Amino acid sequence: MQQKRVGVVLAGCGYLDGAEITEAVLTLYFLERAGLQPRCFAPDRPQMHVVDHLTGEPTGETRNILVESARIARGKVEPLDRARMEELDALVLPGGFGVAKNLSDFAVRGPEADVDTELVRLVGEALSRGKPLVAICISPAILAAVLRKLGIGGARLTIGDDAGTAAALTALGARHEACTVDRAVVDERLRIVSTPAYMLGPGPRDVGAGIEQAIATLAGWLREATGAV
Amino acid sequence: MQQKRVGVVLAGCGYLDGAEITEAVLTLYFLERAGLQPRCFAPDRPQMHVVDHLTGEPTGETRNILVESARIARGKVEPLDRARMEELDALVLPGGFGVAKNLSDFAVRGPEADVDTELVRLVGEALSRGKPLVAICISPAILAAVLRKLGIGGARLTIGDDAGTAAALTALGARHEACTVDRAVVDERLRIVSTPAYMLGPGPRDVGAGIEQAIATLAGWLREATGAV
Repeated sequence: MQQKRVGVVLAGCGYLDGAEITEAVLTLYFLERAGLQPRCFAPDRPQMHVVDHLTGEPTGETRNILVESARIARGKVEPLDRARMEELDALVLPGGFGVAKNLSDFAVRGPEADVDTELVRLVGEALSRGKPLVAICISPAILAAVLRKLGIGGARLTIGDDAGTAAALTALGARHEACTVDRAVVDERLRIVSTPAYMLGPGPRDVGAGIEQAIATLAGWLREATGAV
Repeated sequence: MQQKRVGVVLAGCGYLDGAEITEAVLTLYFLERAGLQPRCFAPDRPQMHVVDHLTGEPTGETRNILVESARIARGKVEPLDRARMEELDALVLPGGFGVAKNLSDFAVRGPEADVDTELVRLVGEALSRGKPLVAICISPAILAAVLRKLGIGGARLTIGDDAGTAAALTALGARHEACTVDRAVVDERLRIVSTPAYMLGPGPRDVGAGIEQAIATLAGWLREATGAV
Protein backbone atom coordinates (compact mmCIF):
# COMPACT_ATOMS: atom_id res chain seq x y z
CA MET A 1 0.00 0.00 0.00
CA GLN A 2 1.45 3.35 -1.03
CA GLN A 3 1.96 5.82 1.82
CA LYS A 4 -0.45 8.74 1.94
CA ARG A 5 1.26 12.03 1.11
CA VAL A 6 0.57 15.10 3.21
CA GLY A 7 1.53 18.60 2.09
CA VAL A 8 2.99 20.79 4.85
CA VAL A 9 3.09 24.52 4.12
CA LEU A 10 6.00 26.32 5.78
CA ALA A 11 6.29 30.10 6.15
CA GLY A 12 9.98 30.50 7.02
CA CYS A 13 11.94 29.43 10.09
CA GLY A 14 11.24 31.13 13.43
CA TYR A 15 8.01 32.05 15.17
CA LEU A 16 8.40 35.84 14.94
CA ASP A 17 8.98 36.06 11.18
CA GLY A 18 8.37 32.55 9.81
CA ALA A 19 7.02 29.12 10.69
CA GLU A 20 6.84 28.21 14.38
CA ILE A 21 9.72 25.73 14.48
CA THR A 22 8.44 23.41 17.22
CA GLU A 23 5.01 23.16 15.57
CA ALA A 24 6.55 22.42 12.17
CA VAL A 25 8.95 19.77 13.51
CA LEU A 26 6.32 18.06 15.67
CA THR A 27 3.95 18.06 12.67
CA LEU A 28 6.55 16.22 10.57
CA TYR A 29 7.34 13.88 13.50
CA PHE A 30 3.72 12.91 14.18
CA LEU A 31 2.93 12.57 10.45
CA GLU A 32 5.81 10.09 10.04
CA ARG A 33 4.83 8.25 13.20
CA ALA A 34 1.30 7.87 11.81
CA GLY A 35 2.74 6.26 8.66
CA LEU A 36 2.10 9.37 6.54
CA GLN A 37 4.66 10.91 4.20
CA PRO A 38 5.16 14.68 4.59
CA ARG A 39 6.02 16.86 1.60
CA CYS A 40 7.00 20.43 2.46
CA PHE A 41 6.18 23.55 0.43
CA ALA A 42 6.86 27.28 0.91
CA PRO A 43 6.54 30.44 -1.19
CA ASP A 44 9.72 31.39 -3.08
CA ARG A 45 9.92 35.10 -2.28
CA PRO A 46 11.29 37.41 0.45
CA GLN A 47 9.87 37.29 3.97
CA MET A 48 7.87 40.34 5.11
CA HIS A 49 10.83 41.04 7.42
CA VAL A 50 13.48 39.38 9.59
CA VAL A 51 13.15 39.54 13.38
CA ASP A 52 15.95 39.05 15.92
CA HIS A 53 14.44 36.30 18.10
CA LEU A 54 16.50 37.38 21.12
CA THR A 55 15.33 41.01 21.18
CA GLY A 56 12.07 40.73 19.19
CA GLU A 57 13.17 43.64 16.98
CA PRO A 58 13.31 43.67 13.14
CA THR A 59 16.89 43.54 11.85
CA GLY A 60 16.66 45.07 8.38
CA GLU A 61 18.00 41.85 6.81
CA THR A 62 16.37 40.18 3.81
CA ARG A 63 15.67 36.44 3.80
CA ASN A 64 13.73 34.19 1.42
CA ILE A 65 10.76 32.18 2.78
CA LEU A 66 11.60 29.01 0.78
CA VAL A 67 15.33 29.13 1.64
CA GLU A 68 14.68 29.62 5.37
CA SER A 69 11.96 26.93 5.37
CA ALA A 70 14.63 24.57 3.96
CA ARG A 71 16.35 24.75 7.38
CA ILE A 72 13.39 22.95 8.96
CA ALA A 73 12.91 20.57 6.01
CA ARG A 74 16.65 19.77 5.61
CA GLY A 75 16.52 21.04 2.03
CA LYS A 76 13.46 19.01 1.04
CA VAL A 77 11.02 21.82 0.38
CA GLU A 78 9.38 22.79 -2.92
CA PRO A 79 7.98 26.11 -4.14
CA LEU A 80 4.35 26.46 -3.06
CA ASP A 81 3.20 27.08 -6.65
CA ARG A 82 4.24 23.52 -7.53
CA ALA A 83 1.91 21.97 -4.93
CA ARG A 84 -1.09 20.12 -6.43
CA MET A 85 -3.76 18.47 -4.30
CA GLU A 86 -4.11 15.75 -6.96
CA GLU A 87 -0.64 14.61 -5.77
CA LEU A 88 -1.45 14.99 -2.08
CA ASP A 89 -3.95 13.33 0.28
CA ALA A 90 -4.15 16.12 2.85
CA LEU A 91 -2.71 19.52 3.77
CA VAL A 92 -1.26 20.78 7.08
CA LEU A 93 -0.66 24.42 7.97
CA PRO A 94 1.66 24.83 11.00
CA GLY A 95 1.61 28.24 12.70
CA GLY A 96 3.99 31.06 13.54
CA PHE A 97 3.78 34.76 12.70
CA GLY A 98 5.07 33.87 9.22
CA VAL A 99 1.58 32.57 8.44
CA ALA A 100 0.18 36.02 9.21
CA LYS A 101 3.10 37.88 7.61
CA ASN A 102 4.35 35.77 4.69
CA LEU A 103 1.37 33.57 3.70
CA SER A 104 -1.10 36.42 4.25
CA ASP A 105 -1.17 39.97 5.58
CA PHE A 106 -3.36 39.01 8.55
CA ALA A 107 -0.72 40.47 10.94
CA VAL A 108 -1.35 43.89 9.39
CA ARG A 109 -5.00 43.75 8.22
CA GLY A 110 -6.73 41.22 10.50
CA PRO A 111 -10.06 40.01 9.10
CA GLU A 112 -9.54 42.13 5.94
CA ALA A 113 -6.45 40.05 5.15
CA ASP A 114 -5.38 38.96 1.69
CA VAL A 115 -4.00 35.43 1.48
CA ASP A 116 -1.29 34.05 -0.84
CA THR A 117 -3.10 33.14 -4.09
CA GLU A 118 -1.34 29.77 -4.32
CA LEU A 119 -2.49 28.88 -0.81
CA VAL A 120 -6.06 29.91 -1.70
CA ARG A 121 -5.87 27.71 -4.80
CA LEU A 122 -4.45 24.76 -2.83
CA VAL A 123 -7.05 24.93 -0.05
CA GLY A 124 -9.77 25.21 -2.70
CA GLU A 125 -8.43 22.09 -4.44
CA ALA A 126 -8.40 20.22 -1.12
CA LEU A 127 -11.97 21.18 -0.22
CA SER A 128 -13.37 20.46 -3.67
CA ARG A 129 -11.77 16.99 -3.58
CA GLY A 130 -12.86 16.28 0.01
CA LYS A 131 -9.25 16.09 1.19
CA PRO A 132 -8.68 16.93 4.86
CA LEU A 133 -6.94 19.99 6.29
CA VAL A 134 -5.07 20.54 9.57
CA ALA A 135 -4.61 24.12 10.82
CA ILE A 136 -2.32 24.83 13.77
CA CYS A 137 -1.88 27.92 16.00
CA ILE A 138 -2.77 31.09 14.02
CA SER A 139 -3.36 29.18 10.76
CA PRO A 140 -7.11 28.68 11.41
CA ALA A 141 -7.52 32.48 11.13
CA ILE A 142 -5.87 32.50 7.70
CA LEU A 143 -7.86 29.42 6.74
CA ALA A 144 -11.03 31.30 7.71
CA ALA A 145 -9.99 34.11 5.34
CA VAL A 146 -9.52 31.54 2.55
CA LEU A 147 -12.89 29.91 3.28
CA ARG A 148 -14.58 33.30 3.10
CA LYS A 149 -12.94 33.92 -0.27
CA LEU A 150 -14.22 30.51 -1.41
CA GLY A 151 -17.73 31.30 -0.14
CA ILE A 152 -17.72 28.58 2.54
CA GLY A 153 -19.22 29.66 5.88
CA GLY A 154 -19.70 28.05 9.28
CA ALA A 155 -16.41 26.14 9.60
CA ARG A 156 -15.76 25.01 13.19
CA LEU A 157 -12.27 26.24 14.06
CA THR A 158 -10.20 27.08 17.12
CA ILE A 159 -7.31 29.41 17.86
CA GLY A 160 -7.50 28.65 21.61
CA ASP A 161 -9.17 31.41 23.61
CA ASP A 162 -7.75 34.74 22.38
CA ALA A 163 -10.80 37.02 22.15
CA GLY A 164 -9.47 39.32 19.41
CA THR A 165 -8.40 36.51 17.07
CA ALA A 166 -11.61 34.58 17.79
CA ALA A 167 -13.60 37.69 16.83
CA ALA A 168 -11.65 37.90 13.56
CA LEU A 169 -12.59 34.29 12.79
CA THR A 170 -16.24 35.03 13.48
CA ALA A 171 -16.07 38.16 11.33
CA LEU A 172 -14.78 35.92 8.54
CA GLY A 173 -17.84 33.69 8.80
CA ALA A 174 -16.30 30.80 10.79
CA ARG A 175 -17.58 29.45 14.12
CA HIS A 176 -14.92 29.73 16.81
CA GLU A 177 -14.78 27.11 19.56
CA ALA A 178 -12.53 27.62 22.58
CA CYS A 179 -10.05 24.78 23.04
CA THR A 180 -7.19 23.88 25.38
CA VAL A 181 -3.65 23.46 24.04
CA ASP A 182 -3.67 19.67 24.41
CA ARG A 183 -6.84 19.19 22.33
CA ALA A 184 -8.11 19.82 18.81
CA VAL A 185 -11.43 20.99 17.33
CA VAL A 186 -12.84 18.84 14.55
CA ASP A 187 -15.12 19.97 11.72
CA GLU A 188 -16.40 16.64 10.38
CA ARG A 189 -18.36 18.26 7.55
CA LEU A 190 -15.41 20.08 5.99
CA ARG A 191 -12.80 17.65 7.39
CA ILE A 192 -10.79 20.38 9.05
CA VAL A 193 -9.04 19.85 12.40
CA SER A 194 -7.43 22.73 14.28
CA THR A 195 -5.39 23.02 17.50
CA PRO A 196 -4.20 26.13 19.39
CA ALA A 197 -0.51 25.16 19.91
CA TYR A 198 1.53 28.29 20.67
CA MET A 199 -1.57 30.51 20.60
CA LEU A 200 -1.68 29.06 24.13
CA GLY A 201 1.62 27.26 24.80
CA PRO A 202 3.51 27.17 27.08
CA GLY A 203 5.92 24.53 25.77
CA PRO A 204 6.68 21.60 23.43
CA ARG A 205 4.99 18.97 25.63
CA ASP A 206 1.55 20.63 25.65
CA VAL A 207 1.78 21.96 22.11
CA GLY A 208 2.83 18.46 21.03
CA ALA A 209 -0.20 16.86 22.71
CA GLY A 210 -2.59 18.98 20.62
CA ILE A 211 -0.67 18.45 17.38
CA GLU A 212 -0.50 14.70 18.08
CA GLN A 213 -4.29 14.65 18.49
CA ALA A 214 -4.85 16.69 15.32
CA ILE A 215 -2.61 14.38 13.27
CA ALA A 216 -4.33 11.31 14.76
CA THR A 217 -7.68 12.71 13.56
CA LEU A 218 -6.19 13.29 10.12
CA ALA A 219 -4.74 9.75 10.02
CA GLY A 220 -8.17 8.38 10.94
CA TRP A 221 -9.81 10.23 8.03
CA LEU A 222 -7.15 8.97 5.63
CA ARG A 223 -7.61 5.39 6.85
CA GLU A 224 -11.37 5.69 6.33
CA ALA A 225 -10.77 6.92 2.80
CA THR A 226 -9.03 3.69 1.74
CA GLY A 227 -9.47 1.17 4.52
CA ALA A 228 -5.83 1.60 5.58
CA VAL A 229 -3.10 4.24 5.80
CA MET B 1 9.71 18.46 44.34
CA GLN B 2 11.57 20.97 42.17
CA GLN B 3 11.92 19.98 38.52
CA LYS B 4 15.35 18.87 37.42
CA ARG B 5 16.98 21.41 35.10
CA VAL B 6 18.76 20.23 31.98
CA GLY B 7 21.10 22.46 29.98
CA VAL B 8 20.71 22.17 26.20
CA VAL B 9 23.58 23.61 24.14
CA LEU B 10 22.47 24.99 20.76
CA ALA B 11 24.83 25.84 17.90
CA GLY B 12 22.59 27.95 15.68
CA CYS B 13 19.48 27.03 13.67
CA GLY B 14 19.83 24.70 10.67
CA TYR B 15 21.75 21.48 10.19
CA LEU B 16 24.28 22.79 7.65
CA ASP B 17 25.54 25.76 9.69
CA GLY B 18 23.93 25.43 13.13
CA ALA B 19 21.98 23.09 15.38
CA GLU B 20 20.03 20.28 13.69
CA ILE B 21 16.53 21.67 14.19
CA THR B 22 14.61 18.38 14.47
CA GLU B 23 17.10 17.01 17.00
CA ALA B 24 16.96 20.19 19.06
CA VAL B 25 13.15 20.38 19.07
CA LEU B 26 12.67 16.68 19.85
CA THR B 27 15.23 17.01 22.66
CA LEU B 28 13.19 19.82 24.23
CA TYR B 29 9.94 17.88 23.63
CA PHE B 30 11.14 14.63 25.22
CA LEU B 31 12.80 16.49 28.14
CA GLU B 32 9.50 18.23 28.96
CA ARG B 33 7.56 14.98 28.53
CA ALA B 34 9.93 13.33 31.02
CA GLY B 35 9.14 16.07 33.56
CA LEU B 36 12.52 17.76 33.09
CA GLN B 37 13.00 21.49 32.58
CA PRO B 38 15.20 22.46 29.63
CA ARG B 39 17.39 25.57 29.75
CA CYS B 40 19.00 26.53 26.44
CA PHE B 41 22.46 28.03 25.96
CA ALA B 42 24.50 29.06 22.92
CA PRO B 43 27.73 30.98 22.26
CA ASP B 44 27.24 34.72 21.63
CA ARG B 45 29.45 35.18 18.56
CA PRO B 46 29.21 34.88 14.75
CA GLN B 47 28.63 31.50 13.12
CA MET B 48 31.54 30.05 11.12
CA HIS B 49 29.39 30.76 8.06
CA VAL B 50 25.81 30.79 6.76
CA VAL B 51 24.68 28.06 4.35
CA ASP B 52 21.69 28.23 1.97
CA HIS B 53 19.81 25.06 3.00
CA LEU B 54 18.20 24.76 -0.43
CA THR B 55 21.45 24.74 -2.44
CA GLY B 56 23.93 23.69 0.25
CA GLU B 57 26.19 26.64 -0.69
CA PRO B 58 27.59 29.31 1.69
CA THR B 59 25.85 32.67 1.24
CA GLY B 60 28.40 35.18 2.52
CA GLU B 61 25.93 36.42 5.16
CA THR B 62 26.87 36.88 8.83
CA ARG B 63 24.64 35.51 11.59
CA ASN B 64 25.13 35.20 15.35
CA ILE B 65 24.94 31.73 16.96
CA LEU B 66 22.98 32.92 20.01
CA VAL B 67 20.52 35.00 17.97
CA GLU B 68 19.81 32.16 15.51
CA SER B 69 19.52 29.62 18.34
CA ALA B 70 16.81 31.88 19.79
CA ARG B 71 14.60 30.86 16.84
CA ILE B 72 14.49 27.29 18.17
CA ALA B 73 14.22 28.37 21.81
CA ARG B 74 11.59 31.09 21.19
CA GLY B 75 13.93 33.70 22.67
CA LYS B 76 14.68 31.72 25.82
CA VAL B 77 18.38 31.09 25.32
CA GLU B 78 21.30 32.35 27.39
CA PRO B 79 24.95 32.95 26.49
CA LEU B 80 26.95 29.74 26.96
CA ASP B 81 29.45 31.47 29.27
CA ARG B 82 26.65 31.97 31.81
CA ALA B 83 25.94 28.22 32.08
CA ARG B 84 27.01 26.67 35.41
CA MET B 85 26.59 22.97 36.17
CA GLU B 86 25.90 23.88 39.81
CA GLU B 87 22.58 25.27 38.50
CA LEU B 88 21.92 22.30 36.19
CA ASP B 89 21.33 18.58 36.75
CA ALA B 90 22.44 17.36 33.31
CA LEU B 91 23.62 18.57 29.92
CA VAL B 92 22.38 17.68 26.41
CA LEU B 93 24.26 18.36 23.18
CA PRO B 94 22.01 18.09 20.08
CA GLY B 95 23.80 17.73 16.75
CA GLY B 96 24.05 19.49 13.42
CA PHE B 97 27.13 20.77 11.57
CA GLY B 98 27.06 23.80 13.89
CA VAL B 99 28.51 21.55 16.59
CA ALA B 100 31.49 20.84 14.32
CA LYS B 101 31.69 24.42 12.99
CA ASN B 102 30.57 26.75 15.79
CA LEU B 103 31.16 24.80 19.04
CA SER B 104 34.42 23.35 17.73
CA ASP B 105 36.48 23.24 14.53
CA PHE B 106 35.96 19.48 14.11
CA ALA B 107 34.52 20.08 10.59
CA VAL B 108 37.90 21.48 9.54
CA ARG B 109 40.42 19.65 11.76
CA GLY B 110 38.78 16.32 12.66
CA PRO B 111 40.44 14.60 15.64
CA GLU B 112 42.84 17.57 16.05
CA ALA B 113 39.84 19.82 16.76
CA ASP B 114 39.75 22.62 19.29
CA VAL B 115 36.51 22.91 21.26
CA ASP B 116 34.82 26.05 22.63
CA THR B 117 36.49 26.72 25.99
CA GLU B 118 33.14 27.33 27.72
CA LEU B 119 31.87 23.96 26.50
CA VAL B 120 35.06 22.27 27.75
CA ARG B 121 34.56 23.97 31.13
CA LEU B 122 30.88 22.97 31.30
CA VAL B 123 31.48 19.31 30.40
CA GLY B 124 34.32 19.23 32.94
CA GLU B 125 32.00 20.61 35.62
CA ALA B 126 29.39 17.97 34.74
CA LEU B 127 31.84 15.06 34.89
CA SER B 128 33.50 16.22 38.12
CA ARG B 129 30.05 16.47 39.75
CA GLY B 130 28.82 13.14 38.35
CA LYS B 131 26.08 14.88 36.35
CA PRO B 132 24.94 13.01 33.22
CA LEU B 133 25.51 14.00 29.60
CA VAL B 134 23.53 13.28 26.44
CA ALA B 135 25.31 13.61 23.07
CA ILE B 136 23.32 13.42 19.84
CA CYS B 137 24.39 12.97 16.19
CA ILE B 138 27.92 14.41 15.66
CA SER B 139 28.16 15.72 19.27
CA PRO B 140 29.79 12.51 20.61
CA ALA B 141 32.83 13.29 18.41
CA ILE B 142 33.16 16.75 19.94
CA LEU B 143 32.55 15.27 23.39
CA ALA B 144 35.41 12.81 22.71
CA ALA B 145 37.66 15.78 21.97
CA VAL B 146 36.65 17.37 25.27
CA LEU B 147 37.21 14.12 27.18
CA ARG B 148 40.70 13.84 25.69
CA LYS B 149 41.43 17.39 26.80
CA LEU B 150 40.22 16.44 30.30
CA GLY B 151 42.39 13.29 30.29
CA ILE B 152 39.42 10.88 30.38
CA GLY B 153 39.83 7.83 28.11
CA GLY B 154 37.65 4.87 27.18
CA ALA B 155 34.23 6.54 27.00
CA ARG B 156 31.66 4.35 25.21
CA LEU B 157 30.12 6.52 22.52
CA THR B 158 28.31 6.14 19.20
CA ILE B 159 27.95 8.24 16.06
CA GLY B 160 26.10 5.45 14.24
CA ASP B 161 28.27 3.56 11.78
CA ASP B 162 30.26 6.16 9.80
CA ALA B 163 33.78 4.69 9.59
CA GLY B 164 35.65 7.99 9.30
CA THR B 165 33.94 9.66 12.25
CA ALA B 166 34.19 6.46 14.31
CA ALA B 167 37.95 6.41 13.60
CA ALA B 168 38.21 10.01 14.81
CA LEU B 169 36.49 9.01 18.08
CA THR B 170 38.92 6.14 18.53
CA ALA B 171 41.87 8.43 17.75
CA LEU B 172 40.59 10.68 20.55
CA GLY B 173 40.71 7.82 23.05
CA ALA B 174 37.00 6.92 23.11
CA ARG B 175 35.51 3.48 22.36
CA HIS B 176 33.12 3.63 19.44
CA GLU B 177 30.13 1.28 19.37
CA ALA B 178 28.00 0.96 16.24
CA CYS B 179 24.33 1.77 16.90
CA THR B 180 21.10 2.01 14.90
CA VAL B 181 19.21 5.32 14.69
CA ASP B 182 16.40 4.16 16.99
CA ARG B 183 18.74 3.19 19.84
CA ALA B 184 21.29 4.80 22.18
CA VAL B 185 24.65 3.71 23.60
CA VAL B 186 25.05 4.06 27.36
CA ASP B 187 28.29 4.59 29.28
CA GLU B 188 27.20 3.80 32.84
CA ARG B 189 30.60 4.68 34.32
CA LEU B 190 30.73 8.24 32.97
CA ARG B 191 26.92 8.59 32.72
CA ILE B 192 27.02 9.53 29.06
CA VAL B 193 24.32 8.43 26.61
CA SER B 194 24.67 8.97 22.85
CA THR B 195 22.43 8.33 19.84
CA PRO B 196 23.21 8.66 16.09
CA ALA B 197 20.13 10.69 15.00
CA TYR B 198 20.85 12.36 11.63
CA MET B 199 24.29 10.73 11.38
CA LEU B 200 21.96 7.96 10.14
CA GLY B 201 18.47 9.42 9.64
CA PRO B 202 16.41 9.20 7.54
CA GLY B 203 13.62 11.18 9.22
CA PRO B 204 11.99 12.58 12.37
CA ARG B 205 10.30 9.30 13.38
CA ASP B 206 13.51 7.26 13.56
CA VAL B 207 15.67 10.10 14.86
CA GLY B 208 12.98 10.73 17.48
CA ALA B 209 13.01 7.09 18.63
CA GLY B 210 16.73 7.29 19.45
CA ILE B 211 16.45 10.68 21.16
CA GLU B 212 13.44 9.46 23.15
CA GLN B 213 15.48 6.50 24.38
CA ALA B 214 18.49 8.68 25.25
CA ILE B 215 16.32 11.11 27.24
CA ALA B 216 14.59 8.17 28.99
CA THR B 217 18.02 6.92 30.10
CA LEU B 218 18.86 10.42 31.35
CA ALA B 219 15.56 10.69 33.21
CA GLY B 220 16.26 7.33 34.86
CA TRP B 221 19.65 8.54 36.12
CA LEU B 222 18.11 11.74 37.46
CA ARG B 223 15.38 9.77 39.26
CA GLU B 224 18.04 7.53 40.83
CA ALA B 225 19.92 10.60 42.02
CA THR B 226 17.03 11.78 44.20
CA GLY B 227 14.44 9.02 44.31
CA ALA B 228 12.17 11.00 41.95
CA VAL B 229 12.32 13.35 38.97
